[in-house]
Amino acid sequence: MAKNIWVVGGDPRQAALARLLAEDGHGVHTYALELAEGVRCEPSMAGADRADCVVLPLPALGPEGGLNAPLSGSSHPLEEVLGPLRPGQPVCAGMVTEPLQAMAEARGLVLRDYFAREELAVLNAIPTAEGAIQIAMEELPVTLHASRVLVIGFGRLGHALVPRLRGLGARVWVSARRYEQQAAAESMGAGVEGMDRLPDWLCGYDLVINTVPAPVLGVEELSALKEGALVIDLASRPGGVDMKAAAALGVRVIWALSLPGKAAPVTSGRYIKDTVYHLMDELEV
Amino acid sequence: MAKNIWVVGGDPRQAALARLLAEDGHGVHTYALELAEGVRCEPSMAGADRADCVVLPLPALGPEGGLNAPLSGSSHPLEEVLGPLRPGQPVCAGMVTEPLQAMAEARGLVLRDYFAREELAVLNAIPTAEGAIQIAMEELPVTLHASRVLVIGFGRLGHALVPRLRGLGARVWVSARRYEQQAAAESMGAGVEGMDRLPDWLCGYDLVINTVPAPVLGVEELSALKEGALVIDLASRPGGVDMKAAAALGVRVIWALSLPGKAAPVTSGRYIKDTVYHLMDELEV
Amino acid sequence: MAKNIWVVGGDPRQAALARLLAEDGHGVHTYALELAEGVRCEPSMAGADRADCVVLPLPALGPEGGLNAPLSGSSHPLEEVLGPLRPGQPVCAGMVTEPLQAMAEARGLVLRDYFAREELAVLNAIPTAEGAIQIAMEELPVTLHASRVLVIGFGRLGHALVPRLRGLGARVWVSARRYEQQAAAESMGAGVEGMDRLPDWLCGYDLVINTVPAPVLGVEELSALKEGALVIDLASRPGGVDMKAAAALGVRVIWALSLPGKAAPVTSGRYIKDTVYHLMDELEV
Amino acid sequence: MAKNIWVVGGDPRQAALARLLAEDGHGVHTYALELAEGVRCEPSMAGADRADCVVLPLPALGPEGGLNAPLSGSSHPLEEVLGPLRPGQPVCAGMVTEPLQAMAEARGLVLRDYFAREELAVLNAIPTAEGAIQIAMEELPVTLHASRVLVIGFGRLGHALVPRLRGLGARVWVSARRYEQQAAAESMGAGVEGMDRLPDWLCGYDLVINTVPAPVLGVEELSALKEGALVIDLASRPGGVDMKAAAALGVRVIWALSLPGKAAPVTSGRYIKDTVYHLMDELEV
Repeated sequence: MAKNIWVVGGDPRQAALARLLAEDGHGVHTYALELAEGVRCEPSMAGADRADCVVLPLPALGPEGGLNAPLSGSSHPLEEVLGPLRPGQPVCAGMVTEPLQAMAEARGLVLRDYFAREELAVLNAIPTAEGAIQIAMEELPVTLHASRVLVIGFGRLGHALVPRLRGLGARVWVSARRYEQQAAAESMGAGVEGMDRLPDWLCGYDLVINTVPAPVLGVEELSALKEGALVIDLASRPGGVDMKAAAALGVRVIWALSLPGKAAPVTSGRYIKDTVYHLMDELEV
Repeated sequence: MAKNIWVVGGDPRQAALARLLAEDGHGVHTYALELAEGVRCEPSMAGADRADCVVLPLPALGPEGGLNAPLSGSSHPLEEVLGPLRPGQPVCAGMVTEPLQAMAEARGLVLRDYFAREELAVLNAIPTAEGAIQIAMEELPVTLHASRVLVIGFGRLGHALVPRLRGLGARVWVSARRYEQQAAAESMGAGVEGMDRLPDWLCGYDLVINTVPAPVLGVEELSALKEGALVIDLASRPGGVDMKAAAALGVRVIWALSLPGKAAPVTSGRYIKDTVYHLMDELEV
Repeated sequence: MAKNIWVVGGDPRQAALARLLAEDGHGVHTYALELAEGVRCEPSMAGADRADCVVLPLPALGPEGGLNAPLSGSSHPLEEVLGPLRPGQPVCAGMVTEPLQAMAEARGLVLRDYFAREELAVLNAIPTAEGAIQIAMEELPVTLHASRVLVIGFGRLGHALVPRLRGLGARVWVSARRYEQQAAAESMGAGVEGMDRLPDWLCGYDLVINTVPAPVLGVEELSALKEGALVIDLASRPGGVDMKAAAALGVRVIWALSLPGKAAPVTSGRYIKDTVYHLMDELEV
Repeated sequence: MAKNIWVVGGDPRQAALARLLAEDGHGVHTYALELAEGVRCEPSMAGADRADCVVLPLPALGPEGGLNAPLSGSSHPLEEVLGPLRPGQPVCAGMVTEPLQAMAEARGLVLRDYFAREELAVLNAIPTAEGAIQIAMEELPVTLHASRVLVIGFGRLGHALVPRLRGLGARVWVSARRYEQQAAAESMGAGVEGMDRLPDWLCGYDLVINTVPAPVLGVEELSALKEGALVIDLASRPGGVDMKAAAALGVRVIWALSLPGKAAPVTSGRYIKDTVYHLMDELEV
């Protein structure tokens, strides 16, 4: 059934989200997205209290603490956005932090974090994997085909990376600590290594992709890499690579964060849409 | 370092296990495997108390309650096997049940169940998937290539089945309840369905593979299948298919249990070996 | 536009062909298929002269020289089948040999051999590859996953085998003589070997699949195989394996001919249908 | 056996070639590559007449008609390069054109064109496919996963593209004229279309990759594309897309030529090396 949905703030992912919601037949209003192409924006939040659901961006807050709204010409304090809403109103936001949580509670809003949903994390691994592959293709003077690639860690990102790299003809190894992760990597056709003594066998790889958010590649490991090897670090802050050591050693490291929004904003918008639907469903909106 | 390992009872998997352990350089003794090819058996358990580890089969006990020993000419009560062991001795067994647990405790044995290990379950999904594919190839008058296949459930078995079926050119859908399972299936290139209203859209499939150990395919679902469709049920007891309804409706259902040992006993033996090594490692044997 | 098509003689592939043609809306008559399920047969060839196209089986002639009609209760001399047809009438047959060619010419029939068409050969490589994989799964005590497979020759069969074997997780090598075949195999992710000195490196394989119709695996090569290795010979007569040497050496060899009709008769029937359509198109039927 | 090989002129591919030949143990001299990293250049061609083989670049001649030498600080007329060589000396060059052919003949050189070799063309399809995928990832706001891709033509490039695109989760169709190409595309898991009436069904694709060097995408076809669709033209001159019509219609077209050298110069150098070896082998150098 058609709903009244407000999409407030955000980057091209939110613009895509608004378009996709409208294509699904919902009544969609946007605010603080006035620089986005193909989106008609409301001049204010007036009327937003009638929304079945209000969707805030990912991340919800910008570095200044206000609404994250890079596609808006002006800045938007949180009060401006949440003020006009009514108690009990469903609000979905990405990466909810303390200030947003507190203000939503104070106003009696029903706040849900779509970025905390496992299905979105699993789906986001797809554009992240594609983004990493794009970077590798741009940076390496060899084809991924027949090159030797090590993926460190075998969670959601590893699961998305291995079949894609293999589909391109790369020879893929996975380094993971837990036995069941090693088993899963073997089942997917990767070679398997533990996490011990990385420096002893790192020299064989053309490309190393780290997915573990822990200090995995320090000076000893980086020294062991062969000349010309590329390191792509997909781990969120603080990352898994000692960047100073890499710079000193002349190892090329690309720390690639937030790839889904950069590599495929429209697809990312669709994933957010699906996840918001799940939340609305659970909230019986 | 070379260990003294006894492999006692079991089927061709245990015979393969014994050979593979010997190839790795261990001192291997077998008992109750005298009908296995290429395995030299001890006449009794004498000396087994000097073993660093005793490995019992999968399942450990036979239908009569004694040692599961289909490759032995005689029957072996549990006392015969455990009696000669010494308190504190490590024993690895598959599918440990109450009687074995109790007797092992009474004797002070350190009993571990390798079949309860997640890594073995993940690895066993590989031969299970191959076994299911073999059955489908044997039974269907069409190629898997270009056929439409539904996999019900998306746990370890689903993860092993989908890429293999797709690698053979099948068009694969996954029906799963949880959103993150649906997301994982989508990431692997499968189409995705929920678990609601199965009967509404079951008619499109040439092959349905169930992996969910719950009554999933009842009379309504089975009636919805198209003529000639094949159902393979991989769910452990009590299975997911109403076999009576299937018989009445003339739907071909193959309930395929314990595929790893049947489809690939040597590979299964290798998986058990790897898992036993992990257990020995954790027991600091 | 709907055509009048007669399907005469043959095995389950022709029965499937008749059903599929009818499903496409054509007026279909069958003869000499009276034991096939779900097919209504004409009592004689009377009326066949009004057919837009008459389809004979694959192979067209049986061992006795009459119509190949294993699903008929009686034998059918060629005259009985071709006699009632009119000069200029299109006849499509599989594996046309001299006697059929001569009689068709004598009667002024427009005879085409669908088995000589490249597209059918390419398509038939799919069920052949699946059939070979099925045999390997049935015969080997190890999974195809992680097993080492050598494909000898890299024509149509090799092209169908390599991605499927790799999709199942096998490690695949191709042995081919021509450099461009080696390049194509490399592009598909296989390891590459030449055809020289096979015996020097054959020992590494669990499974060898020959596709070259020439004496490739003689006593020297067979002696080099490791114990327990399986050989599947897909080469048409005279085959590529010295069967006597294999028997003497105890090497398991399965010479698998005509797999499409055995492994997937319905799919094979569909391929024949598509090819007959192409022929009818070119004949402007 | 170690040879004396001169690598003369060229781009990073030739620099890689020189390094790889040296790694294989040959005595390697380079000329007109003095700006290449890690390559020590001769000051002149003196001594080149003792080479077992002289390798010219791909293409051999630059736009001015002299040696193609973008990594040289000066220009090199053909006479400077060929003059010092001795009659009967083997020379391998890429894309041999009339002037080079004539001068080589006049001097009695044994000239071979490695770019005319089928194995190099097959191998070069790999980096071309990767380069096209990289462009698609850079340009599209959606993932290749789950996007709909049409590949026009099914020769060497199509064969390399389809499995890679499918390996990334794209839904791939192939449009090809010949039935056996359609069959080969079907075998690889692609959907199949003919080449007739392209405008009738082009609207479904997010990405169209043309590989046919003929005017395939004219104003009618381009008008049929859906908004935002991307066209990548891999066809060599004159290309397959009406670029003026595309510009007028606002269709994004990327005409990507010579991808192997751009996307993966080191791998391309390796392919040239392999092909030069084949030529030397045939010349019994």
